[in-house]
Order: sequence, then structure tokens, then C-alpha cells
Amino acid sequence: MSDGSHLHGAAIQDFYPEDVAVCFGCGRLNEHGHHVRSFWDGEQATATFRPEPFHEAITGIVYGGLLASLLDCHTVGTGAAALYAAAGRPLGSAPAVRCVTGRLEVDFLAPTPLGPVLQLRAWPVEVGARKVVVEGELTADDVVTVRCRTIAVRLPDRS
Amino acid sequence: MSDGSHLHGAAIQDFYPEDVAVCFGCGRLNEHGHHVRSFWDGEQATATFRPEPFHEAITGIVYGGLLASLLDCHTVGTGAAALYAAAGRPLGSAPAVRCVTGRLEVDFLAPTPLGPVLQLRAWPVEVGARKVVVEGELTADDVVTVRCRTIAVRLPDRS
Repeated sequence: MSDGSHLHGAAIQDFYPEDVAVCFGCGRLNEHGHHVRSFWDGEQATATFRPEPFHEAITGIVYGGLLASLLDCHTVGTGAAALYAAAGRPLGSAPAVRCVTGRLEVDFLAPTPLGPVLQLRAWPVEVGARKVVVEGELTADDVVTVRCRTIAVRLPDRS
Repeated sequence: MSDGSHLHGAAIQDFYPEDVAVCFGCGRLNEHGHHVRSFWDGEQATATFRPEPFHEAITGIVYGGLLASLLDCHTVGTGAAALYAAAGRPLGSAPAVRCVTGRLEVDFLAPTPLGPVLQLRAWPVEVGARKVVVEGELTADDVVTVRCRTIAVRLPDRS
């Protein structure tokens, strides 16, 4: 994504203003981070992630804290996309919409195996003026292993 | 802690069996991990953590996904300690008690500034046979910025 002038191939996080694009979980400007990239289709957002071998909880099982943090970034990104959509605005149009996490609820339904690329999905269930409730899930080898519910809170606009 | 024969200076995670001591959040054997170490006083557990400069969410604010993962490890460790205590057993006595996370609820009450050492505290509120409900909080500069509630689930004993 070179200029933000079209949506094809752009993630929600590609439109975060620079000072809020440093997130360890999803910031494109954080060279140490996880770089979660969430793709919005108008109704839901999807992302993928391949854990590193050291991202374990117990041997062969992915660390739940990492999964929670991936879902955190993915769902708050989805919250921002939902706010653009609710306002009838194109993703990334000014003023930029950026949400942070007010509450995160994560249910670990089954162990997530280390190996396959993880699939993340999230969708808004309640869109307010400054608050979006987002639900999401994480799938490994076609099994939903984690579910979450996030309250995403919109940051004030900047000049 | 060289031999586990005394408790002075030992963290709950020091007693995790080797194959469940690889956790990215708290495993002593994970060289890339956060190495959360939780100290149990019989009623609650405390831990400290100093985030790296790149552990940001937005500039100057610690990444909430990291905070959730620190509280995850700290509260499930507290759950294990509470199960030892409920059985009247010394921490680390065989068979080893190790919990994993069933559910994690995190409330971000205020931004957590990047800079100060973070203080974590957790305490059991409901101790069952295989399940412990643990509450916890994270403090930065004497302000509680994050609260959590975790359902810790005991792993089956190993031979």
C-alpha cells in the first residue's frame, strides 16, 4: 500500500495516523511488533497470523496471552472500520478514526496448536457514537479455539 | 532458586514442570518470553514488570495486549498457588499444580504510562476442585490502570 488512495490490499491499520501506528500488536511502524493486519469487507474483518516457535504456552500449544492480544488489535481495528461504515465514510478518510480497548473478554475454548496459520475474524455487534462492541474468533485448522468480545472506544479526533 | 527446597525468593512459576515452563508470558525456559514471576504470600500474589520501549499501544502508552497477557500469566499462576493452599500443600509439592486460562476478562480503566515499573497483584475469589476464579489488577505510578478476572483451569496431573 503506497499512498492510501485505494482500498485494494489495504488493511485497517494502514490508515492509522503515524503516532497511533506504533502498537506492538498491530502498528506498521513498530519493528518489534506482531503487525496484525485486518481486512474489512464492509461487514467483518479478517486477519491471519503465524506464531513463532517460541510463542508457546505449554509445549505445542500457542500462548493464550498472545492470542488475546491478536484479537485485541483485530477487534479494535474492526471497531474503527465499523465507525467509518456507520458514518458512510470511506475507510481512512479524514478525520482518522482510531479506537482503543475499553474491555476485552476472551474465552479459550480449546488449545490452539502451534503450526498452522491462525485465522482471525471479527464483526461489530453494536455501534455507538464513540463505542463499538465487537465480537471475534480465532480459528486453527478449521477449529474455533478462541472467542472474544471487545468494547472498542474511539479516540478523540486530532487536528 | 537452585533446588526448590525452600520458598524464600521463589516464584510460583519456578515450580512449573519443565514441559509447562516454556510459556512466552511466564516460562523460565522461554528465552524470548516476558518471564512474569509471581510471588505468593498465602493470600495474594504480586509481580512486577518493566515494559520495553517498543511495548507501546500509542506513543507513551503501554500496549494493552501485553498487559492482558501479563495479567493472564499472573492470575493463572495465582490460581495454581490457591489450589496448593486449598489442599494444605506447600507450593511446588508433588504432584505439580499447573493451571491454564479458561476465560480472561480485562478492563482498561486508564492508559498505562510507559516508563514506570508495573505492579501486578492477584488474589483468588473462588477456589473449586479444578477451577479457580482469580481477580487481579495492574498499577502504574500508584494508579490502578487495568483490572482483570480470570478463570484458571487446572491441568490434569502427570505421572
